[in-house]
Formats: sequence, structure tokens, C-alpha cells
Amino acid sequence: MGKVSTGASMSLDGYIAGPGETGFEHLFKWNGNGDVPMKTADPNMTMMMTKVSHDYFSERMAELGALIVGRKLFDFTSGWGGRHPLGRKTVVLTHTVPDGWEPENEAFVFVHDGIEAAVERAKEIAGDLDVGVNGGTIARQCLEARLLDEIFVDLVPVLLGGGTPFFDHLQNAPVVLEGPITVLEGRDVTHLRYRVTYT
Amino acid sequence: MGKVSTGASMSLDGYIAGPGETGFEHLFKWNGNGDVPMKTADPNMTMMMTKVSHDYFSERMAELGALIVGRKLFDFTSGWGGRHPLGRKTVVLTHTVPDGWEPENEAFVFVHDGIEAAVERAKEIAGDLDVGVNGGTIARQCLEARLLDEIFVDLVPVLLGGGTPFFDHLQNAPVVLEGPITVLEGRDVTHLRYRVTYT
Repeated sequence: MGKVSTGASMSLDGYIAGPGETGFEHLFKWNGNGDVPMKTADPNMTMMMTKVSHDYFSERMAELGALIVGRKLFDFTSGWGGRHPLGRKTVVLTHTVPDGWEPENEAFVFVHDGIEAAVERAKEIAGDLDVGVNGGTIARQCLEARLLDEIFVDLVPVLLGGGTPFFDHLQNAPVVLEGPITVLEGRDVTHLRYRVTYT
Repeated sequence: MGKVSTGASMSLDGYIAGPGETGFEHLFKWNGNGDVPMKTADPNMTMMMTKVSHDYFSERMAELGALIVGRKLFDFTSGWGGRHPLGRKTVVLTHTVPDGWEPENEAFVFVHDGIEAAVERAKEIAGDLDVGVNGGTIARQCLEARLLDEIFVDLVPVLLGGGTPFFDHLQNAPVVLEGPITVLEGRDVTHLRYRVTYT
């Protein structure tokens, strides 16, 4: 059975988005500051990474079998035009199936009975591979339900001073982590991987 | 002329203290989880660090010629019983000289005319060495006055979920950093050093 992990590009002061949805040119600079092409599920979009970041990202992608996102992100991106850009079947945690969508199709499954059910469904889809959950609210819910196994942080050398924290208002803090299990120094990013421990 | 730097033990989610002044057993675990003695200015207090953390800490201490702290910390510690535990002359930024203290003695100088004056006074004291400023409010004021040159983060694998952020409510965010210039993997800590850039 695969692991449940979350990952995000995060500023040194702990934000995955700056105030008013700003700061992405800093947070995702490492997606485009190298010369090694990294394909996405969208044939029109190729990222250009340094070799370190490319190899790290490729390895992570190879491990991912399914994703979980929240309804807010799904709506914000209008369902990414039909498929998550990482090209994995995606469980959307929501109270109601959005208008115009079937409860399940090839790209999305809408789950309405809580984070445990969403993780269970995503694990079925992922099989031996990992489940990747979105940073912010969903990752927090997974942590609180003690379902999160690993955290990937792409630590970016910028202070955003506010915005959306990677983890916020945790109910069961402090959460002690093990690691970093790996530390990879890219350009404009440090890739860190931690294991979650529950006591 | 030396540099102005700040440093702190920080949780992965960006806090230098947890909610209600908690979490220090996690944040400062690396001060006592090794077998190499690290002396402090207090003869009764020796920290036991791993070799990596000891060498990192020793090197940093050798660079420090003076400190700046805020009045809140000075009061909270009751002036550390007469001398800052790092054994460096310390500029205290305050509106008024606290009762019972001279405006200046061997251990402390009380400066009341703003962060620029505090940094200038601390640089005089430090000579060729660096000035170390306390995390939180003082570090933020230095950043906003464009006086901060470097940031040391001792990144600790714990999520505290709230508390005192290392940097909060920055007025001139985003602040772009260079680095990490160095990455040292200790036990229960990753020592990161960044350079501040001002555009």
C-alpha cells in the first residue's frame, strides 16, 4: 500500500501563496529556471528545470498514483479544463457534486463524506503508488486524521510576509516530524522531505 | 565593517515560539542532543550538541560582536540576570531606560531613538565583527529599514500550528533572499544561511 503525502512550494516564512494570491513568480521560479524539460499532462505546457529539480520532480511524479484536492481549488481552476495538470485521477472533497459533472469520470471522483473516505478512495485508485494531497486545508485535515505519512517542502528563499500558510490552525499541534530524510539543493529552492510521526 | 544578521530556531511552519510560549523542547532540542560541549557565557550552563551543530554554532559565535534585542525580551528575561547569555554587549531598543539601570553599562546599552540608531550603536560596539539581532519584531524592523544582511534559520522538523512567526506583517514583502548559502544537516535541525537582497 502506498503512502499519503503532501507537498508544496513554500516561502521561508511558511506561505504557499502570498497576500491576495501573490508571490507565485517567486514560489514557482524553480519550475522554470533550468534547461531540462519536464513534461506535464498538458501537451502545451513544459517546465524547464535544473537537473536537480527535474530529477527530484520526476521521481516524485513516478510515485504518485492519485491526488486529493479540495472543492475550493477545483472551482478556482474550473476543474483545470477537465483534468489535473499532474495527469493523475483526482479525488475532490466536496459537499455536493458540482453542476455539470458526473459523480465520477476518468479524471475526477467527487467524495462528500469526509477526509477519511477521500483518502480511502484515493488509495484504491493509487494501488501500490502514493496518494498526493493538496497543501493547505486538505493537508491539515489529513494531519489531524493522522493519515498523512510524508511532507515534501520545496523551500523557496523569499519572505512573503503573509498569505496562505502550508499548515494553519492545526488542532493536534505540535506535530513532530522525522528528517529531512532528503535534502536536495536546487536553484532558488531547497527540496526537503519529512516523515510524519504520530505519538 | 561587519554584517547585520538575525537567526533563530524555527519550526517548519515558520514559528520561533508555539502558541502561548510553547514548543521550546522541540525548537531547541538540537542544543542538547549531542555529545560535544558548547560553553555559554553562563558558567553553569553548557549545551551538548552534535559535532555539526557545535561547529556551526561556534563559527557563528566567533563572528558576533554585539547584539540587539527588544525591550519585551529584556523584560521577559529580567535582563538575563545582568548579561546576555551569548556574552556579547547588547543594545536594547526601548522607549525608556528601565528602572534601576544606567543608560549604559558593560553589558547593556539602552537606545530609544529607533532601529537605525540601535544598529549604528551596535556596529560601533561590534567593530569588524557582526551584529546579531533578535528574531521577531527587531528583525522585522531591520528588514524594513533595509539594514539586515543575512538570515540564519535553524529549521526544526516540527509543526507548531501557531505562535510567534520569525517574520510577520512585513511591510516591504516580498523580500527576496539569496541562498541558502550554506546547508548543514544536524540532528533534529537543518542549519540554513541566507543573504538578503534589496531591489
